[in-house]
Amino acid sequence: MSAAQSTTPPHETQPSGTQPVRLMGVQARAAARVLRSLPTARKVSALHAIAAGLRANAAAILAANAQDVQAAIEAGLPEPMVARLRLDARMLDGIAADVEAVSRLPDPVGETTPAQTQPSGIRVSTRRVPLGVLGVIYESRPNVTVDVAALALMSGNAVILRGGKETVRSNAALEAVIHAALRAQGLPADGVQVIRDPARERMLELLKLDDLVDAIIPRGGAGLHRYCVENATVPVIVGGIGVVHVYLDPSFTRDPEDRARALEIVRNAKVQKPSACNALDTLLIHEDALDALPDIARDLQAHGVTLRTDPTAHAALSAAGITTDPATDTDYGTEFLALTASVKTVPSFEDALDFIAARGNHTDVILTRDEAQAGRFIEDVDSAAVVVNASPRFNDGGQLGLGAEVAISTQKLHARGPMGLRELTTTKWIVEGNGEVRM
Amino acid sequence: MSAAQSTTPPHETQPSGTQPVRLMGVQARAAARVLRSLPTARKVSALHAIAAGLRANAAAILAANAQDVQAAIEAGLPEPMVARLRLDARMLDGIAADVEAVSRLPDPVGETTPAQTQPSGIRVSTRRVPLGVLGVIYESRPNVTVDVAALALMSGNAVILRGGKETVRSNAALEAVIHAALRAQGLPADGVQVIRDPARERMLELLKLDDLVDAIIPRGGAGLHRYCVENATVPVIVGGIGVVHVYLDPSFTRDPEDRARALEIVRNAKVQKPSACNALDTLLIHEDALDALPDIARDLQAHGVTLRTDPTAHAALSAAGITTDPATDTDYGTEFLALTASVKTVPSFEDALDFIAARGNHTDVILTRDEAQAGRFIEDVDSAAVVVNASPRFNDGGQLGLGAEVAISTQKLHARGPMGLRELTTTKWIVEGNGEVRM
Repeated sequence: MSAAQSTTPPHETQPSGTQPVRLMGVQARAAARVLRSLPTARKVSALHAIAAGLRANAAAILAANAQDVQAAIEAGLPEPMVARLRLDARMLDGIAADVEAVSRLPDPVGETTPAQTQPSGIRVSTRRVPLGVLGVIYESRPNVTVDVAALALMSGNAVILRGGKETVRSNAALEAVIHAALRAQGLPADGVQVIRDPARERMLELLKLDDLVDAIIPRGGAGLHRYCVENATVPVIVGGIGVVHVYLDPSFTRDPEDRARALEIVRNAKVQKPSACNALDTLLIHEDALDALPDIARDLQAHGVTLRTDPTAHAALSAAGITTDPATDTDYGTEFLALTASVKTVPSFEDALDFIAARGNHTDVILTRDEAQAGRFIEDVDSAAVVVNASPRFNDGGQLGLGAEVAISTQKLHARGPMGLRELTTTKWIVEGNGEVRM
Repeated sequence: MSAAQSTTPPHETQPSGTQPVRLMGVQARAAARVLRSLPTARKVSALHAIAAGLRANAAAILAANAQDVQAAIEAGLPEPMVARLRLDARMLDGIAADVEAVSRLPDPVGETTPAQTQPSGIRVSTRRVPLGVLGVIYESRPNVTVDVAALALMSGNAVILRGGKETVRSNAALEAVIHAALRAQGLPADGVQVIRDPARERMLELLKLDDLVDAIIPRGGAGLHRYCVENATVPVIVGGIGVVHVYLDPSFTRDPEDRARALEIVRNAKVQKPSACNALDTLLIHEDALDALPDIARDLQAHGVTLRTDPTAHAALSAAGITTDPATDTDYGTEFLALTASVKTVPSFEDALDFIAARGNHTDVILTRDEAQAGRFIEDVDSAAVVVNASPRFNDGGQLGLGAEVAISTQKLHARGPMGLRELTTTKWIVEGNGEVRM
């Protein structure tokens, strides 16, 4: 692969991130014009070249990453954050494999609807095209730099990346590899640019580039999303923030196998990855299903979960010898992102729907054997994902069949739920006529 | 129709617009929960009741409108704005007919994709659902109040309307008719609410209701759009602002019939409705097509169009005895919204593409007999609508086959070009399992 054989060491490439953000936007726009018309095969080749470049330049990338890790340790960064930052040879190979996996996804660009002839005589169709220039703001995870670059390129977009400040050296090394691969493929390196200056002012400049950037996708905590929504003039796709409910109906507690399934689903929902946005926050339990609660509570506590319960659930658990914390109002409608869950007893299924209507938007689960009830739950609950008899942890691009995801949207405009390649595109109208004018 | 037989005169209904905007948002959200699950037949009935109510209450509506018109005249409003404000019996009947036309459009809500079974065993589909609560901000046109209410209801959404301050009485009368019709149909009147307080602070409150409102759709001038983009925390769909180019290739000037077609298309593009966002702004002409320019220029001038030309076009027209104004840089990439157009001579088709790439985003037309060139134009030009051999005025919801439009989006996220019922919806993910958990 030519990227791998490049004679310029990646870390000596001119760093684009030292340029003004507006200039980066102008360059991204020019690159986007080339990228948007690329045949699929050229995008696949570019991704293969990037994957090969990552493997061939592993030593340089890992050396840059080691400097980031060292600096983070010296700065006293908490160990979980240092862990997210750290790369090793095996992980880097996995990142390269992910790039190759993206190259195998179906290319949505160019899909054209059948032309419809209108009464005026014009023929009208729509064609799927890239969004253009994306701005992606994310945490200190070097793998995201490559993932997002691959998804952007495969969908024909240019992207400006602004990662966490702890990953500046890693990202510069990764950007250099991507640039070398793009150049070797005869493609504009400006299709992927990293903002290296970690100052918040640079991010603010990016958020205001509405004449050059088509969408901002923040990935990270609620504070970052709020900052983007309040300051951006570029449209923002908000994601990843939201509350997850599981409603347990009595019909799913009568059969011992169902009880075991309910326990497993609740455990999976809360324990498998408590820091994920699709992890359980509030268990809603019908009062006629309370006899199933002690086993569930014991299991969660055994897995280190702190439970905050309403008085009815609290009493039912006390009677079974299980001690829990009393829940306050703020324990409902709250995203915990930790080994904590609230429990709320509801007198009816309708009360569960009302509870979720007031608080849900991300992922809501019903455990029931009543098909009509499941249908009503699917109809009434207005969240990005509605789940029947399975774990909320399935609200994930890979699990839902998208192949990869750039973010999970919890807003309703443009994209809802996991965003894959298709969600990085838009459409344009195509009108073909033979001299028609408007009457 | 029961709405028509209501005994309460519409103008005596409690005005929702005197309530705080946040309370209106809370009420809209509650109404949206009912509206989102309505079967199509009930939405059709509601629209029929509204149309009947408009006809039955014509006297009260026209009386309120006459007060608005009188106040506008006394306030010295320019005649074209007074004209937009004024209703008469025939127009009101037309508005009612438009509501009935919306009721005949296909209902996009409920469309569900075929379930795909994933490797985990879960079955995954998506279902089309209403956006929820819309905020629509528009000029002093009472017809828009009814049009937008009908489109919102037919797509299962609640809507908060903020029209121009000159239409306060007309909008109150129209809202009362809509409320009576909704109540008579057993539907929540809060599904359509009008903000009556014209203070900009009320609009700002609406723009910040991101926990209650799902999308803001501004209709109006560039200033309003800019204000929304800069101040809203609710996602905004920007539309209607943009530059329209027509490129005339020599291949479309060789045949006398093509010359006549080119002249007609350019005239239609500029003259038929100069105030429309899809009217011509800049004519790009290949230097080898300049001999077709004098006839076009004479025709445009005969229709009152002021032409601003580059030196080459200026000289060609001078030689034909036609005087035009010299164009300055600001005459390109400018939306005139009036009987003014700029002309730019380009030495090649590629230069035309570059010119449009730097300035286009709304509607761009090519007049050509070269099919490969037309294909390249469609591919390279990244605008909401790309038109071959027809007038740009076709970039309109009705003309493109949407039936009706709530606005024309010039952004790329969510919707691009005319927005019909489908663009007022989103999707949710539906996961159906049998106890599956994430590995």
